[in-house]
Amino acid sequence: MSTLESLQASFESYFNHRHFPADPSTLYNPLEGFLSNSGKRIRPVLCLLGNELFDEIHPDAYHLAAAVELFHNFTLVHDDIMDKAPLRRGQPTVHAVHGEATALLGGDVMMVVAYDYLNKIDQQYLKKVLHLFNKTAKEVCEGQQLDMDFEKLEKVSLEEYIHMIQLKTSVLLAASLQMGSIIGGASEHNQGHVYEFGRNLGIAFQIQDDYLDAFGDPSKFGKQVGGDIQSNKKTFLLIHALATAKGTDLDELKNLIGSNPPDKVEKVLAIYKKCKIDDWANTLKEAYLNKAYHHLNEIAVSAVRKQTLRELAQYLIKRDK
Amino acid sequence: MSTLESLQASFESYFNHRHFPADPSTLYNPLEGFLSNSGKRIRPVLCLLGNELFDEIHPDAYHLAAAVELFHNFTLVHDDIMDKAPLRRGQPTVHAVHGEATALLGGDVMMVVAYDYLNKIDQQYLKKVLHLFNKTAKEVCEGQQLDMDFEKLEKVSLEEYIHMIQLKTSVLLAASLQMGSIIGGASEHNQGHVYEFGRNLGIAFQIQDDYLDAFGDPSKFGKQVGGDIQSNKKTFLLIHALATAKGTDLDELKNLIGSNPPDKVEKVLAIYKKCKIDDWANTLKEAYLNKAYHHLNEIAVSAVRKQTLRELAQYLIKRDK
Repeated sequence: MSTLESLQASFESYFNHRHFPADPSTLYNPLEGFLSNSGKRIRPVLCLLGNELFDEIHPDAYHLAAAVELFHNFTLVHDDIMDKAPLRRGQPTVHAVHGEATALLGGDVMMVVAYDYLNKIDQQYLKKVLHLFNKTAKEVCEGQQLDMDFEKLEKVSLEEYIHMIQLKTSVLLAASLQMGSIIGGASEHNQGHVYEFGRNLGIAFQIQDDYLDAFGDPSKFGKQVGGDIQSNKKTFLLIHALATAKGTDLDELKNLIGSNPPDKVEKVLAIYKKCKIDDWANTLKEAYLNKAYHHLNEIAVSAVRKQTLRELAQYLIKRDK
Repeated sequence: MSTLESLQASFESYFNHRHFPADPSTLYNPLEGFLSNSGKRIRPVLCLLGNELFDEIHPDAYHLAAAVELFHNFTLVHDDIMDKAPLRRGQPTVHAVHGEATALLGGDVMMVVAYDYLNKIDQQYLKKVLHLFNKTAKEVCEGQQLDMDFEKLEKVSLEEYIHMIQLKTSVLLAASLQMGSIIGGASEHNQGHVYEFGRNLGIAFQIQDDYLDAFGDPSKFGKQVGGDIQSNKKTFLLIHALATAKGTDLDELKNLIGSNPPDKVEKVLAIYKKCKIDDWANTLKEAYLNKAYHHLNEIAVSAVRKQTLRELAQYLIKRDK
């Protein structure tokens, strides 16, 4: 079985070329620059791992991996426009440098090129893969819309938040794995467990992300701790705190949300700790992680085939940055 | 053979249903509203006609027609954001009513649903159709980028303008026809002529569009005559006038572009007429139309099979509104 590092490296070498024509350079050069400022390439690696669970990695898995990576980057470019974000991966966003119109159009064309990569795979799998890819792409858009809708709502339930997170984040991780497994010839039954592993892992990952934003080690987290609290972002923590805090704790939390004192982060964190929101979040994360591992165990291939996927899950979840 | 009216009606009845799920309604309802405010449905009808040139219309041609119509509407929603346009088809644009974020995301999801329709067709044609669709989608994005780039340039050559128009407008008309012809089982040779017919017809159509904006009958044109002149839009007419006017005519034209007198439209029109830009535009339109008809004639099917397509070309080009 391949190691995580070798899969990352082999995807990188497959993906590391121009994806777009030279002209018009005003459209395409900003995209090449954005794609080369690589993220962690988690989704493409999941594609390769989904394939390798069932078979030797097929060249088509690299085409799928590229499609998934381009789709993911398309959502980042468009989300950054919607969120008016100035920075991404420590660099100015595409729209901040090249204007919103070019970022919008660049995102569009990146999505089309994702479909170009999908169209390279063996015809026998094309319809099934396209169906899953399209379903997932729609869900990701729905998740982004719900996220924006929730920003305007005063109250969001935990169920609503989990539904949104699942659409916005988890389904693409799950579908990346499943697409790889389709190429690997997995049965429908095994594909289902592969997908559910990815979906539950994604939710656990997001719980951890919200947790680290509040309780992470500032020297390791890589971004400002407490950013979500400062911006009143609805997170697992805030939603549960608003639903369970009582009396003066609840009053103080609501006051803090409605104001912006210099010690806002410290005061909200104190309430979180007093109400044991941190313990609750860790318990919830473990519950989703257990569901994920249950589905991993159910995939009907030998344990050795699952080893690298298990390592990736550990890498994603044990991370403290 | 079907008449234009019957094809329009049968597409309308195929297309007239919800294309999106109910939730989130904040994302999908604006799109349903936009799609039901129908345009002329020219591209889907071209799909059906491309099919009927070679065979009875296959149900797959309707799936392709829907994909093309959704793609076209996706470009309109995104172009309107980029152009900050307040109105489309006499109605407020999606972003004007629902905000830019929802319009952006709505456009994205409309494009995904276009690929859903493509994925309904017979597997034997899927790769070829996807390839053509993706190539065309990229070209349309490139055309929009060039159009925006040209707005910032002082001088654009006729060749550059035709290249841009071809990408922005013609290739989708050409590809709509060709996709239909693929489903109809057309040979590569015939597909080539079908495409070239659509491409040249599209250029002739744009020349006429530019002409009518300047010289059309205000009572029939349906929008303000002279709008392009008011906004200094680079059109076939302005580009050729700047390239051929001499002496005081050229000086006056440049002055008019650099200023905004109340009689700007009349004065520019007077220069256009003096320099015979109107005659030149009509001659150029005829030249592209002749090229289009040459390719129509070359398609190796009986003349009766081409009749409705010929009628559509006449409808598009003889129109005075």
